[in-house]
Amino acid sequence: MGLRSGLAQIRRRAYEILEVARPGDRSSRVADMFILGLIVANVAAVVLGTVESVLRSTGPLLDAFERVSVAIFTVEYVLRLWSAVERRLQERRLRTRVKYATSWLAVVDLLAILPAYLPVLLRIDLRTLRLIRLFRLSHLLKVGRYSRALRTFSVVLRAKREELAVAVLAVLILLLITSSLMYYAEHEVQPEAFASIPAAMWWGAAALTTVGYGDVYPVTAVGKVLGIISAVLGIGLFALPAGILASGFSDALASSCSEDGVCPTCGREREAA
Amino acid sequence: MGLRSGLAQIRRRAYEILEVARPGDRSSRVADMFILGLIVANVAAVVLGTVESVLRSTGPLLDAFERVSVAIFTVEYVLRLWSAVERRLQERRLRTRVKYATSWLAVVDLLAILPAYLPVLLRIDLRTLRLIRLFRLSHLLKVGRYSRALRTFSVVLRAKREELAVAVLAVLILLLITSSLMYYAEHEVQPEAFASIPAAMWWGAAALTTVGYGDVYPVTAVGKVLGIISAVLGIGLFALPAGILASGFSDALASSCSEDGVCPTCGREREAA
Amino acid sequence: MGLRSGLAQIRRRAYEILEVARPGDRSSRVADMFILGLIVANVAAVVLGTVESVLRSTGPLLDAFERVSVAIFTVEYVLRLWSAVERRLQERRLRTRVKYATSWLAVVDLLAILPAYLPVLLRIDLRTLRLIRLFRLSHLLKVGRYSRALRTFSVVLRAKREELAVAVLAVLILLLITSSLMYYAEHEVQPEAFASIPAAMWWGAAALTTVGYGDVYPVTAVGKVLGIISAVLGIGLFALPAGILASGFSDALASSCSEDGVCPTCGREREAA
Amino acid sequence: MGLRSGLAQIRRRAYEILEVARPGDRSSRVADMFILGLIVANVAAVVLGTVESVLRSTGPLLDAFERVSVAIFTVEYVLRLWSAVERRLQERRLRTRVKYATSWLAVVDLLAILPAYLPVLLRIDLRTLRLIRLFRLSHLLKVGRYSRALRTFSVVLRAKREELAVAVLAVLILLLITSSLMYYAEHEVQPEAFASIPAAMWWGAAALTTVGYGDVYPVTAVGKVLGIISAVLGIGLFALPAGILASGFSDALASSCSEDGVCPTCGREREAA
Repeated sequence: MGLRSGLAQIRRRAYEILEVARPGDRSSRVADMFILGLIVANVAAVVLGTVESVLRSTGPLLDAFERVSVAIFTVEYVLRLWSAVERRLQERRLRTRVKYATSWLAVVDLLAILPAYLPVLLRIDLRTLRLIRLFRLSHLLKVGRYSRALRTFSVVLRAKREELAVAVLAVLILLLITSSLMYYAEHEVQPEAFASIPAAMWWGAAALTTVGYGDVYPVTAVGKVLGIISAVLGIGLFALPAGILASGFSDALASSCSEDGVCPTCGREREAA
Repeated sequence: MGLRSGLAQIRRRAYEILEVARPGDRSSRVADMFILGLIVANVAAVVLGTVESVLRSTGPLLDAFERVSVAIFTVEYVLRLWSAVERRLQERRLRTRVKYATSWLAVVDLLAILPAYLPVLLRIDLRTLRLIRLFRLSHLLKVGRYSRALRTFSVVLRAKREELAVAVLAVLILLLITSSLMYYAEHEVQPEAFASIPAAMWWGAAALTTVGYGDVYPVTAVGKVLGIISAVLGIGLFALPAGILASGFSDALASSCSEDGVCPTCGREREAA
Repeated sequence: MGLRSGLAQIRRRAYEILEVARPGDRSSRVADMFILGLIVANVAAVVLGTVESVLRSTGPLLDAFERVSVAIFTVEYVLRLWSAVERRLQERRLRTRVKYATSWLAVVDLLAILPAYLPVLLRIDLRTLRLIRLFRLSHLLKVGRYSRALRTFSVVLRAKREELAVAVLAVLILLLITSSLMYYAEHEVQPEAFASIPAAMWWGAAALTTVGYGDVYPVTAVGKVLGIISAVLGIGLFALPAGILASGFSDALASSCSEDGVCPTCGREREAA
Repeated sequence: MGLRSGLAQIRRRAYEILEVARPGDRSSRVADMFILGLIVANVAAVVLGTVESVLRSTGPLLDAFERVSVAIFTVEYVLRLWSAVERRLQERRLRTRVKYATSWLAVVDLLAILPAYLPVLLRIDLRTLRLIRLFRLSHLLKVGRYSRALRTFSVVLRAKREELAVAVLAVLILLLITSSLMYYAEHEVQPEAFASIPAAMWWGAAALTTVGYGDVYPVTAVGKVLGIISAVLGIGLFALPAGILASGFSDALASSCSEDGVCPTCGREREAA
């Protein structure tokens, strides 16, 4: 067995270990758990590193941990990129690697380690760049037992994407109209809080989504009537996507089951088309 | 080919271009996109025009843009009205045009350009009239790929209009009763915030819709118990329309598919009645 | 035709006019609309009568209107009670009248007019008693075209009453547990706002129902973590009844349609049992 | 009949009385009601015992009631543990008892009475330990007519546990990302409220769950835009679990009925597989 095929075997094994584990492949599962644990610990370090008291007491420790984890993530990234060719062996290597490197997760992985290697960027606040690591938590959603649920989600969202887009568009138009009306109603009495329509949209978003911080609210009679109407319309804004998604999940289940040829409602076998 | 039939051809083409594009008709799509883009830009100008700093720096530019876009919208409106007869060629022209001119979108379109031509109205605050332009954003919802979703929405809302009306009526009665009870509970202790039942309805709307600005809230024991009950009832107010709409969307899908004679759940063909 | 049968005919007609109108019976519809209009106007008078400025300017008018409408409502109540025997002609008169008089709507109707006739009660604040008139608005829900929707609601609520009761019970237990935990977390730091567990429940209700007035909120670290958990659990509190009602409405539709012998999902005719 | 079989009979009867009553078994129903009433009264005493004025006026009475109820609960616990062997007569006694003693309800029952017997623990604040009694309210959910609804709940939650887990995970990741972004946007302007990412999560939870206390809110333009996006995303957070549960309840009904071999929608009998 030559060096070439030896390397190919190592690459094959690296690919198997780094990607989602097959049932029974224990070292792959251990590696997955280790990387996921490190991601979570790394995010925890970023989050806790912003707490003054923690930074003062364990700052050097956090720094050391960061350096070590960045090193491991770098090795992981290089291995993933190198073994990415195992995905589609019949395609050209460069093509498969570029395809992998431009995928959402790979870009996030690169951005998460890059700042540590760019002393040129040192002048920018590196803490802001650390934030990119939070997105690496998406790896958590790839864990085996969540993947079926995620697939259902993506089926539902894709099936209902037009209804949801219209709902979001309607929300935005409604937000714009409500805020504009409120601007004309309240501008004179509260020239600070309702200084302009964009400023009034801060109130509008809080009212329509029923957050209601209470820093801004109408005080005129017209404004309060508008506010009541907005709040009631806000109920509809919650009910609409809830209804869309509810029917989406029902359909997803129905169609996924009907693939087996059995109607999920009445239990009858589907006849051949 | 005489002038008459030449004009008729132009009218036909104008109609095709201004209305929703057929697949493949590129100039129609470009015109649609241009008008939609102009509407969005016009709305953005209205909104940004209320920001003090923007107005000071780019006020004249916004004014010029407004004049140009109003001119284009006028041409568009006249063309639409003129070519409206193409909708129903067998009907009388005046009749078809009046029908078009009194439709929701045409009225909004007219109101959006009218103020610019009425110097008599100059004494009223023109900015308020500009607000009507926001409603032109409804044109966005007519874009091809949203039309199917919009049709579903209108089917669901029409099918469930009685249930939703009863739900809204129940919300209003509940709002009135809760606010009145709260008025009697809190009026003596907070004569300002709960000055009257209409004033108490400002609290009531914020509580039932779970907005909760926090500018008004009960302080007496009786009032707080009432407030807790209102908040819990508020959960039901969200659940009711969400449930109605959810079943409405499921039905809409089921009935729309069953028109093809195929059960959407089990994939069997419907037998002839 | 003797006096007796003449009276019986008048009673029959009074019953037909006061109860829900049959299609085509115009005088019955007019009477229904008049009574409903009077109820709404009466409620509006009660509500506006609490506004200081309205009371000062149109107080005597409101008083006169109240006296007149109470007089009409009294006549209406007596007529309803008298003609109630037409409901079940085969039962004993007293029995049918007592049955009618103890129904929800009749009790509300009586309570709405009673205070005006009880000078003995004059020492109590009559305004509080006027509030009972608000409940007369329930008559609005009896209007013909809402009755189908109301029947659907009552079917859904009855079918899901156990699930909804468990949901409410779970909400109350959760409210109690969250508030108690918060009391122990915040009592020492905020002895005013979290004076006792019942006091902490004011916070708990605002947090779980996502109202969030902002007059009370945790300030300790433990309290804030508890607050975050409560808020996230609050999402579930909305999702649970929404889900229950959604399936309830779907079932109600399915079973109501299946009465026609046709499955609403697959369009097949139901076979005889 | 020897002592042994006499004891066994008593044990059998104790088991029947303490566990959920069979229809017709009146003394068992009375005992169930008595225990449930005592639990509710005990919880009410714990809750009211934290109110200063109540404690001053009826403190000794509450103490006495607590001692008596703890005594009764102790007898009840011992009887339950002793009669637990009746659950599975074919298994070994110790095994059945240990299984029972480690069940959720039995552990709560033990923890609720234990503190009263541990003078060693007197130095800890006993009031905190009393809180455990609140969890005994779970017994309320075991009452007969709620058990069917509870079973439906557990079926739905089990069937949708993966979807709900992904939804919760997504909420947490979203909370982390939103709060971190807000920390970088607001930290400089509001160094107190947004002192660190964990501190910003207090804002994030209130915004995403639409509670919106109003003690913390963004003031910068970037922060407000982030706040609007978070509020709109918060709508989705409510719609997602509502949709999941709605389809869950529909499925639960469908599958529970199809066990009888009858399609719940069209009423046809299922054909043998």
